[in-house]
Amino acid sequence: MPVVIATLRTKPGRRDDVLAAFEEHTPAIHAEPGCELYAVHAGPDRVTVVEKWADQASLDAHGVGAPLVALGRVLADALAEPGDVAVLDAFPAGDPAKGLL
Amino acid sequence: MPVVIATLRTKPGRRDDVLAAFEEHTPAIHAEPGCELYAVHAGPDRVTVVEKWADQASLDAHGVGAPLVALGRVLADALAEPGDVAVLDAFPAGDPAKGLL
Repeated sequence: MPVVIATLRTKPGRRDDVLAAFEEHTPAIHAEPGCELYAVHAGPDRVTVVEKWADQASLDAHGVGAPLVALGRVLADALAEPGDVAVLDAFPAGDPAKGLL
Repeated sequence: MPVVIATLRTKPGRRDDVLAAFEEHTPAIHAEPGCELYAVHAGPDRVTVVEKWADQASLDAHGVGAPLVALGRVLADALAEPGDVAVLDAFPAGDPAKGLL
């Protein structure tokens, strides 16, 4: 069950454009098969998405799906550097209720 | 309710040392007041922690608590660059069951 952390550093003044694009397209991403978590977060100069997918196939399909393509059109001009998209494995430790997404 | 994403890029060959330190100290962090989520993840050259705290005061207390100090002793020698620790706000969009940690 892959976890993805996407860190997007935004150009000065463009963070809210990126958030608006996520507000528009997140409902369609939540409806994609295998999407278990797709949670958007905002910092002063960044937008970070925490994702969990049922399996690699659903993550692969998301990667070429219409919502992400539409998001990419906004991101192409609004990021200060290429996004850092990390595909990770959970490392369970401690209390399972607090240690796993 | 602050969310923290801590991205730790590890030196070659040191990732498993970092994971072992998290395995040792995560139970104590889960027991800290206000810890709602502290989930460790592993990539090929990084360890990423997704955290949620009840409030800023509990996050501040965690930052000076014994478990993080102990973790820091391992991280000091094992990271390829300073950790990227981002304190973020949730940006709810779409389905609340999938859009919020």
